[in-house]
Amino acid sequence: MTDKDTPSSPSRRSLLGWGGAGLALGAAAAGGAVAMARTDDAPPPDAGSAIPFHGPHQAGIATPVQDRLHFAAFDVQTSDRAEFVQMLKDWTQAARRMTAGHPVGEGGYGGLPEAPPDDTGEALGLKPSRLTLTIGFGPSLFDKFGLAGHRPEALVDLPKFAGDNLDRNRSGGDLCVQACADDPQVAVHAIRNLARIGMGKVVIRWSQLGFGKTSSTTPEAQTPRNLMGFKDGTRNIAGTETDRLRKFVWVPEADGPQWMTGGSYLVARRIRMHIETWDRTSLQEQEDIFGRDKGEGAPVGKAKERDEPFLKAMKPDAHVRLAHPDANHGATILRRGYSFTDGTDGLGRLDAGLFFLAYQRDVREGFIPIQRNLATDALNEYIQHVGSALFAIPPGVRDKDDWWGRTLFSEEA
Amino acid sequence: MTDKDTPSSPSRRSLLGWGGAGLALGAAAAGGAVAMARTDDAPPPDAGSAIPFHGPHQAGIATPVQDRLHFAAFDVQTSDRAEFVQMLKDWTQAARRMTAGHPVGEGGYGGLPEAPPDDTGEALGLKPSRLTLTIGFGPSLFDKFGLAGHRPEALVDLPKFAGDNLDRNRSGGDLCVQACADDPQVAVHAIRNLARIGMGKVVIRWSQLGFGKTSSTTPEAQTPRNLMGFKDGTRNIAGTETDRLRKFVWVPEADGPQWMTGGSYLVARRIRMHIETWDRTSLQEQEDIFGRDKGEGAPVGKAKERDEPFLKAMKPDAHVRLAHPDANHGATILRRGYSFTDGTDGLGRLDAGLFFLAYQRDVREGFIPIQRNLATDALNEYIQHVGSALFAIPPGVRDKDDWWGRTLFSEEA
Repeated sequence: MTDKDTPSSPSRRSLLGWGGAGLALGAAAAGGAVAMARTDDAPPPDAGSAIPFHGPHQAGIATPVQDRLHFAAFDVQTSDRAEFVQMLKDWTQAARRMTAGHPVGEGGYGGLPEAPPDDTGEALGLKPSRLTLTIGFGPSLFDKFGLAGHRPEALVDLPKFAGDNLDRNRSGGDLCVQACADDPQVAVHAIRNLARIGMGKVVIRWSQLGFGKTSSTTPEAQTPRNLMGFKDGTRNIAGTETDRLRKFVWVPEADGPQWMTGGSYLVARRIRMHIETWDRTSLQEQEDIFGRDKGEGAPVGKAKERDEPFLKAMKPDAHVRLAHPDANHGATILRRGYSFTDGTDGLGRLDAGLFFLAYQRDVREGFIPIQRNLATDALNEYIQHVGSALFAIPPGVRDKDDWWGRTLFSEEA
Repeated sequence: MTDKDTPSSPSRRSLLGWGGAGLALGAAAAGGAVAMARTDDAPPPDAGSAIPFHGPHQAGIATPVQDRLHFAAFDVQTSDRAEFVQMLKDWTQAARRMTAGHPVGEGGYGGLPEAPPDDTGEALGLKPSRLTLTIGFGPSLFDKFGLAGHRPEALVDLPKFAGDNLDRNRSGGDLCVQACADDPQVAVHAIRNLARIGMGKVVIRWSQLGFGKTSSTTPEAQTPRNLMGFKDGTRNIAGTETDRLRKFVWVPEADGPQWMTGGSYLVARRIRMHIETWDRTSLQEQEDIFGRDKGEGAPVGKAKERDEPFLKAMKPDAHVRLAHPDANHGATILRRGYSFTDGTDGLGRLDAGLFFLAYQRDVREGFIPIQRNLATDALNEYIQHVGSALFAIPPGVRDKDDWWGRTLFSEEA
């Protein structure tokens, strides 16, 4: 494929534009000007448009949050480094095409009658739907392919937190791909086609569908409600807040390792909600637990969702009070979580909750201290963390010759 | 609530209109003129509008298919008939409000601080999203509450079909509610609130989320693709085809029992697809199996999706050939199936497929003969039926004083 293949749609100009920007900006890739440019250059968030795939940072982090999610963690099966690198290159090319609204491969859904189609076909005729594909590398990947010396210090093993009840089969993974799109069929199609390309090299360890976003990275947008009926994470980092993104989300060159410059770290937690119990709790208690009113989402004693909270007006164990940066030495994360419902457990209760996704520059200054502080959170009676994973998110793919993981595997070579 | 509570939205006029129509038409409820009126009166299928709840038939059958599904099967826990009937009345009132875009209960998300909110809140601020709620009664319900004499003859126990591998935990149920909406959060909210209202009286036996519709009931619309990448069920019954609806979907008075007049029968089948195997199959074989080309969806030898198929041009075991009414003595069903993806099985394969929903006047002349004829379907190598249920769908709720199941429970009283 060449850039000539990009469609004459809102994505075309942006894609071409990004190819150029990536080349020109080179090592300054993690700088604020670029982050700003990425956000400003992005097409407006209407459901059919394409999000540029190329850039100094991967899309799907500061990008305005799409409506739906399919997230997959993979384990590596091959021990052949060259084969794995080739798969990353093949994945990159497929991701480049799918995010632009093209089928995988030159043949698309068709091709030679005697061969399986390059693309599985179920997204044919659907719009790009603002699909983003974001890759991450788990701690266990660095035990393979001679990568041990390149594991970032910040890619720690997450400590056990109070109340954790983690299912091994919903935790960890050598790799992850986060697919976000406004159409769930587009997100599912993307994960499925990457899994197909990876067959024999990687296998899905676990995956999660999210049906409703619970966070916004669009400035001043209303925060969507979680399945407890509340707005949470109001002061999320917006995709336009260049300074906060640089301070809290993107890994600067100074942090190291070099290959992570412009990258980030992703914590994924499957948080089951005991919604049947929650639904029997009084309105007053629900509002006390969150530290907000339910209707508007305003902090205790305030009128509007975005009014600055007065933490001391809240109960000591209120969620907002314990999660607020002021209670955590300024620790701040970018949230992109989604609500999930995965059928019913053996007791007739909906297996539902929040698939929490948080991006940060360093988990040791982000998720870990915040989650430790939430040990006394009144909300803990109604939730349980049942899955957990941490991934190093490499920087963006700069242009059509670049590929996911190049900075890591080139450093190693 | 009174009709004055209905919103000043596209639904308002229709709702009031239906109250009147239902009263005036009385016993002629199953007639073609009414079915036509319902369809014509429905607001245009844009994502935010409300679908009228009142009518001679339940909405969610002939209604233009919404994008997303949450389907729940319930088992009855109470043995108190009056308590169960009261729950059906409470459900009806909640369904009436939710489909109009209102929260459940007068208090909505708020209410008395010392009481749990009437509504769980997560749909607050979302549009009606064309939500429909459709109730059904399973065979096992008729073992309870002295209903044995009222079980319709057509509500048979489904026979075992070739290749069935049914999971008891994904099959059956005393009751079902099908929630369809263009926003999945609206569908999930509806099921969850009905489950909450039913607490202690019923419990969810199993539930299924569907992320992408695979059928259309809108005339001449493109058929959406299933997860095999194909269009299937092209000649579905459209919501405007009054004659075919009357012939194949709605139960006429002559069929009996009386309480089912204007109702229908729903077959729900969870069909797992072995998509990894399918994805390794050649294009030619895929097209031979379906009897269509993959790109356009045209039958073998034809140019367009809706061209009349020439069955003898297809392989004898082609899916279209075996499923076509001409191969089944005219048997015809109305399809409203959805694609699903429920994470991953223990072997790293996506647990994905088709949640097949088919409405018909009589399963003995609809699903059963068709499914028997599909015993030699070439597709069977790539799919497996893993869940199954059959429900009698009572007629619609006529007006604000009517309730789900009234015709059944009044007949009995």
